[in-house]
Amino acid sequence: MQVSFSAQEIIEIVRPKATKGGCESAVEGIAALADAKPGDLSFLGNAKYKVEVPGTAASVVLLPAEYFGEPKPGQLFLLVENPSAALARICGRIEQALWPKPSPGVHASAVVAADAAVDPSATVGPLCVVESGAMIGAGVHLQAQVFVGRQARIGAGSWLMAGTVVAAECVLGNRVRLQPGVVIGSDGFGYEFVQGRHEKVPQVGHVLIGDDVEIGANSTLDRARFSRTSIGEGTKIDNLVQIAHNVTVGRHCLLCSQVGISGSTRLEDYVVLGGQAGVGGHITLGKGMKAGGQAGITSDVAPGGFVNGTPAIPYLLERKIAVLQQRLPDLFKRVDALEAQWADAKKSSS
Amino acid sequence: MQVSFSAQEIIEIVRPKATKGGCESAVEGIAALADAKPGDLSFLGNAKYKVEVPGTAASVVLLPAEYFGEPKPGQLFLLVENPSAALARICGRIEQALWPKPSPGVHASAVVAADAAVDPSATVGPLCVVESGAMIGAGVHLQAQVFVGRQARIGAGSWLMAGTVVAAECVLGNRVRLQPGVVIGSDGFGYEFVQGRHEKVPQVGHVLIGDDVEIGANSTLDRARFSRTSIGEGTKIDNLVQIAHNVTVGRHCLLCSQVGISGSTRLEDYVVLGGQAGVGGHITLGKGMKAGGQAGITSDVAPGGFVNGTPAIPYLLERKIAVLQQRLPDLFKRVDALEAQWADAKKSSS
Amino acid sequence: MQVSFSAQEIIEIVRPKATKGGCESAVEGIAALADAKPGDLSFLGNAKYKVEVPGTAASVVLLPAEYFGEPKPGQLFLLVENPSAALARICGRIEQALWPKPSPGVHASAVVAADAAVDPSATVGPLCVVESGAMIGAGVHLQAQVFVGRQARIGAGSWLMAGTVVAAECVLGNRVRLQPGVVIGSDGFGYEFVQGRHEKVPQVGHVLIGDDVEIGANSTLDRARFSRTSIGEGTKIDNLVQIAHNVTVGRHCLLCSQVGISGSTRLEDYVVLGGQAGVGGHITLGKGMKAGGQAGITSDVAPGGFVNGTPAIPYLLERKIAVLQQRLPDLFKRVDALEAQWADAKKSSS
Repeated sequence: MQVSFSAQEIIEIVRPKATKGGCESAVEGIAALADAKPGDLSFLGNAKYKVEVPGTAASVVLLPAEYFGEPKPGQLFLLVENPSAALARICGRIEQALWPKPSPGVHASAVVAADAAVDPSATVGPLCVVESGAMIGAGVHLQAQVFVGRQARIGAGSWLMAGTVVAAECVLGNRVRLQPGVVIGSDGFGYEFVQGRHEKVPQVGHVLIGDDVEIGANSTLDRARFSRTSIGEGTKIDNLVQIAHNVTVGRHCLLCSQVGISGSTRLEDYVVLGGQAGVGGHITLGKGMKAGGQAGITSDVAPGGFVNGTPAIPYLLERKIAVLQQRLPDLFKRVDALEAQWADAKKSSS
Repeated sequence: MQVSFSAQEIIEIVRPKATKGGCESAVEGIAALADAKPGDLSFLGNAKYKVEVPGTAASVVLLPAEYFGEPKPGQLFLLVENPSAALARICGRIEQALWPKPSPGVHASAVVAADAAVDPSATVGPLCVVESGAMIGAGVHLQAQVFVGRQARIGAGSWLMAGTVVAAECVLGNRVRLQPGVVIGSDGFGYEFVQGRHEKVPQVGHVLIGDDVEIGANSTLDRARFSRTSIGEGTKIDNLVQIAHNVTVGRHCLLCSQVGISGSTRLEDYVVLGGQAGVGGHITLGKGMKAGGQAGITSDVAPGGFVNGTPAIPYLLERKIAVLQQRLPDLFKRVDALEAQWADAKKSSS
Repeated sequence: MQVSFSAQEIIEIVRPKATKGGCESAVEGIAALADAKPGDLSFLGNAKYKVEVPGTAASVVLLPAEYFGEPKPGQLFLLVENPSAALARICGRIEQALWPKPSPGVHASAVVAADAAVDPSATVGPLCVVESGAMIGAGVHLQAQVFVGRQARIGAGSWLMAGTVVAAECVLGNRVRLQPGVVIGSDGFGYEFVQGRHEKVPQVGHVLIGDDVEIGANSTLDRARFSRTSIGEGTKIDNLVQIAHNVTVGRHCLLCSQVGISGSTRLEDYVVLGGQAGVGGHITLGKGMKAGGQAGITSDVAPGGFVNGTPAIPYLLERKIAVLQQRLPDLFKRVDALEAQWADAKKSSS
């Protein structure tokens, strides 16, 4: 990524509360404090790295307003309320260069059904397929090699990256982002066991995705057996996550990478699941509950709960047990000793 | 999904043992008992939800023959042997509308090698690639953007959804279904460590998939180092599952989402693995064995076994230990008390 | 895979130290000792299978030089230093037939930007997309339906299989292999929580992949928030692995299937992670450390360390605790008995 900002341009973007020092050179990169070299911008986003500020070679450093140190010669400190947020504003400016708005229109190599409704302001990139009856909203960007099935609907401003699949009948809200390789609307995993064989239960529902949802690369969301699998507004899903049929995910949840959620389970709003956590079927995770990475959740969790482990139990209890487990070798020795003392006492008293 | 059935059409599809009540309106949706509104069909598939029947607003309800309650005015109860199976028959009818049989033929945008053998009754959808020597059987449907490599063979009636990849030399049986993004025939993960580097071991085997197998979205099946990785007839594999090289999966197994199976392991028939379970390499899982979600299986399991936990042990033992673990804080206190009593006794006796 | 070698051709490929017996028939397959039939080649790669040598029906068997048995009539034993390495040489020869070098050039159906730089010796297969400013090096093979984004660079001799995605600005070294469905350069999972909503933190870095790296099917590597996510030379990554933003993976590491690594974590050289292991964010795994399958690593591990379990602890301690856990039912009984004895003693003494 070619980046070039003058110190003055950076100041205009972040609007600092105060500045210290100054820098002549252009900012041509962003780096962590310890890795930065002259010409880079860096930032103190986590107090843990405070000791690295005096040693950084970065030309421009974003710092919390209460930071007391002084810059080196040729170094500019920008004191801001929230350095991470300030950096995000700079990155937002860079992003416009990284992902320029494409021109509207349908690429000549795309295969679009005659009766699909593509908004004139939408971009359908090379080698995309848009099937019969599909609806592509205003300003939508299908990057390349995207598949949109029959009767599917893609809401305004959504961005579907290379190789994403939205199968028939599925519905995406506005400003939805699908990272490459996402599959929306694969069949749910449902079979009836009949005479020694697994007979397929047809999966005739769909997937409904709310506004401002983002879904990570190669994640998979199954269509419902009937009615819908749904993801609430503002929820963010990381890479390689599995959402089974008839799951309901609330609004503003965060599902980290490789999470798996079994069928018909319901997540209320603001749920946060750590990486590789697994959730059983037909249960409810209450509003704002959290689970640690690799947790295996097999029953309902109350709103605000924080669970960990497999099977998942309250976090503090799980931590306590994990510590005690490491003391098991010692505990076995202590019980051995008690038994030996008892046997001795018995022998000497007889 | 636009659905519309008259009560009479529903009766013809499910052929109930008896009916109670009646309904004038068309059935235009399917929903769970608690979610259903007038115009919906619902069903009692699990005795757990029996209390929800009297309150449901569904216009038509599929119920087990022994159900005793009475419908509300304008509500039709259909008493059947198996409400889930009856629902599956209705969904099967809906599925024909959702996934109409495509017309045979090769789409103009597909790239098909001159010496590939495509049956005239097969459908090769837009932007598919079929390489040299590949064989596409009768009635096969390659939906869109599918890749079929050199000398690969796709059996009659198979259905490969958007973006699936079947690499060179791999062989699919009849009526195989691949959900979007499935990869068949990626290289196995094999290296020899030579002078500080991992030298690739060429993977020159293939993947052989039996009749009536279904594989979920974005799952990956590696080709064998030599000979074959094979999946038995009737086995069903969920999304994001990993099958390593030279694995043999028997017939009629169920592998839930995010399961991973290491190289050269053998699953006999009717094995069932819960979500996120992991299986080590070079072991055998006996006929009909089962493993819980997130189990980590590191050694052979006898036919009919049921294991859980990491490392996986017999289910009942694992459950017992899990319960005792939660009593560890108490156990440590009890041993503390015994030691204190002993010390007191010793002091008072001395 | 059609294979046919005469015994003489096999001898020329493996150059054995000595031979015993002889075989007239051509070698037309490779199989494990127990599965081989006449016409197959087999090998003793693991001492565990030594007992299977006398019974094998293979026509040619690769054996370690110190093997003492005699072949059956019509059977040829080839005594070599390392049977696995000898087999790899044969498979290497077969591989050339399985994956013949494609002709250079851009397929007519590919969509290549006018200002992309495609080396004349590179092959751009059917239905690939190469965006503006991308650079495709000498001898590169984009198999089919591959996406290479703006300004991305693919080093010489790299091989990107069907359906892989390399997003804008990402850089691959020389001789990199991407198995089907790999995604390089999806957005990192970063949000700021502002007024009840998760605001996206733009991800404007890229992914940098060293020479001789191989990445398995449907794995995902996120672009950095800024600067880069990087994979060192010679590292091999299995299927369905997740690498988060700003992760640094050293040289010659092995990451088995379904591993997940959280943001900003650093792996030094020669790290080996077992299948389904998860690694937390912002930690360092020292040179040559190893982790067992399903390990959950939440803090730094020293160079050479070997950890297991969740949370991961030193391997031997983890094994010891796992054994003691299975004796917990017995330990509870022993403590019950001690308490009862104590109570009895107290009663009788009072």
